[in-house]
Amino acid sequence: MQQLTIAIDAMGGDFGPQVTVPAVVQALSQFPELKVTVVGDRDAISTQLTHLNYTLNPRFSIVHSDSVIGNNTQPSKALRHSRGSSMRMALDLVASKDVDACISAGNTGALMGLSRFTLKLLPGVERPALISPLPTKNNQRTWMLDLGANVSCDAETLFQFAVMGSELAEQSIGRKAKVALLNIGEEEIKGNDQIKRCAEMLNQCQDIEFIGYIEGDKLYQGIADVVVCDGFVGNVCLKTSEGVAHLFLDQLKSQLLTSKFKQILAKWLFGDVISSLKGLNPDQYNGASLIGLRGIVVKSHGSADIPAFNNAIKEAVHEIKRQIPNRISDRLEAVLLERHY
Amino acid sequence: MQQLTIAIDAMGGDFGPQVTVPAVVQALSQFPELKVTVVGDRDAISTQLTHLNYTLNPRFSIVHSDSVIGNNTQPSKALRHSRGSSMRMALDLVASKDVDACISAGNTGALMGLSRFTLKLLPGVERPALISPLPTKNNQRTWMLDLGANVSCDAETLFQFAVMGSELAEQSIGRKAKVALLNIGEEEIKGNDQIKRCAEMLNQCQDIEFIGYIEGDKLYQGIADVVVCDGFVGNVCLKTSEGVAHLFLDQLKSQLLTSKFKQILAKWLFGDVISSLKGLNPDQYNGASLIGLRGIVVKSHGSADIPAFNNAIKEAVHEIKRQIPNRISDRLEAVLLERHY
Repeated sequence: MQQLTIAIDAMGGDFGPQVTVPAVVQALSQFPELKVTVVGDRDAISTQLTHLNYTLNPRFSIVHSDSVIGNNTQPSKALRHSRGSSMRMALDLVASKDVDACISAGNTGALMGLSRFTLKLLPGVERPALISPLPTKNNQRTWMLDLGANVSCDAETLFQFAVMGSELAEQSIGRKAKVALLNIGEEEIKGNDQIKRCAEMLNQCQDIEFIGYIEGDKLYQGIADVVVCDGFVGNVCLKTSEGVAHLFLDQLKSQLLTSKFKQILAKWLFGDVISSLKGLNPDQYNGASLIGLRGIVVKSHGSADIPAFNNAIKEAVHEIKRQIPNRISDRLEAVLLERHY
Repeated sequence: MQQLTIAIDAMGGDFGPQVTVPAVVQALSQFPELKVTVVGDRDAISTQLTHLNYTLNPRFSIVHSDSVIGNNTQPSKALRHSRGSSMRMALDLVASKDVDACISAGNTGALMGLSRFTLKLLPGVERPALISPLPTKNNQRTWMLDLGANVSCDAETLFQFAVMGSELAEQSIGRKAKVALLNIGEEEIKGNDQIKRCAEMLNQCQDIEFIGYIEGDKLYQGIADVVVCDGFVGNVCLKTSEGVAHLFLDQLKSQLLTSKFKQILAKWLFGDVISSLKGLNPDQYNGASLIGLRGIVVKSHGSADIPAFNNAIKEAVHEIKRQIPNRISDRLEAVLLERHY
């Protein structure tokens, strides 16, 4: 049995060890081959273990850290003062190959900056990207990137995102991924220069199944397996979707709270609709990955609860098993070679 | 009674006269002070009037046009070959002051290009913007701009959008509008350079109530009355919201179709939820305005049905009554003077 080792930034996110520690304990029972190093305040972690009646063992070790990077700390400042922080120490464990992957629910900008600094980019990669699968119609998934690692991107960067995203998606769906560029129209004339240039590059690339432009209203139709955009647009798009979903969930909840009878009826009437609404809740598909790096880094939502953080751990396990960074590197090399010869 | 005159591009949109003509007839009965000039193929328009048993009268006149600008025509090409098209002729009627406003459901890019060419920009305005109210929590509205007229915008343009959007919103809500910039984080450090610079400008402007950054997930909370972003982001954001809303509406519909009994129960149980879901349907808030021009231009969704196109006419009536272009011009002048002295 291949051993899987993961470092957890226990202090990141809105809830810290309260969420991360129980999620780890759960994951250890789900994956017998898993070994976890939990980085954070030893006392806070121990308190949670006591609550859970869980005793330390070779599969759960603690590495003490003195500080936490704040959610509002500027990435450049986080980088300078990162020594001794739980996020930095967890990443260092990946860089030194003591563990196979790390997970943090902390400051996204800091995690990106520190990941790049400690792990370095894969050969040929210009920018790392944040990628996550979104739930779509008919229980499919569409991987979207970049979700906020880069506020602006040129055509070459978007092209690389398409290649990296394809590889990650294909490792889950087991067939060629259909790739689309997010744009404000489906016609060839629409969009900005970077997107038009990237479309030309993708059209010429044999190795990528480029299906053209996609608009926001088609995102959740399951038409594309991978949707590529810059990090500003991707982040707004993802958060807006969450906003709409939450609006409906909240209204549904407030209506249902008025009566137990209504709750039961609602379940019977709209079980599928309610679960599809809940499926758009960010916590259900928690676990965005920072790809393009020489190591596996999974970013959890800051507001993740225990099942959500557990999902992020599952994503890391999947990426270790499929050796995602190696595969991305190979794919990118193959595509870049195809372009140059 | 002030007379209101509107020109309609009868041929634009997915359905042409089939939708535009009945919507006009409806509007004429709603607004006794309204007079409409319908521009398009005379035969196609007459056929619709016959269907409706409606006879021509001084309040409904037809101006025949020979051509229609296609949805996929590049704006620059549309501009060169626009003479004789229903869109161009409707806009010319605004430019010559024969009518007070025009409405088209045709090609957005072409409408923007032609509007700018025929009507010209208001003094001090660098770019026109497409703006529309979005429905939010507690039946409020949030005006969002730009929704696709400009794929990229500098800080000055975003600032002008904030001023123009404030004026339009305030004419509806009757109080000072709260203005936010759409960004990928609420902290000051987040976002791209244009947004950060625009935030500084808005912070210094006494006349605008700037409440800071807003993220996509807060868009529908009714926190801001006006949300400003570039046209690429705005368009993706709007269409993504529509996509999520349609996903839910479709699933709700497919569930309800299975039984009449379920339909009745659902209406009783979840009337409010269903109408809030339907409220996010683009057709409910149809009628985006192209502002910053020396005339009133309302853009209907291409896929608008009769009630939706009727909403666009109502928006035009409102803007004529409130003399929106004059008010925007005055407001902008006041703000720019404040900045320079």
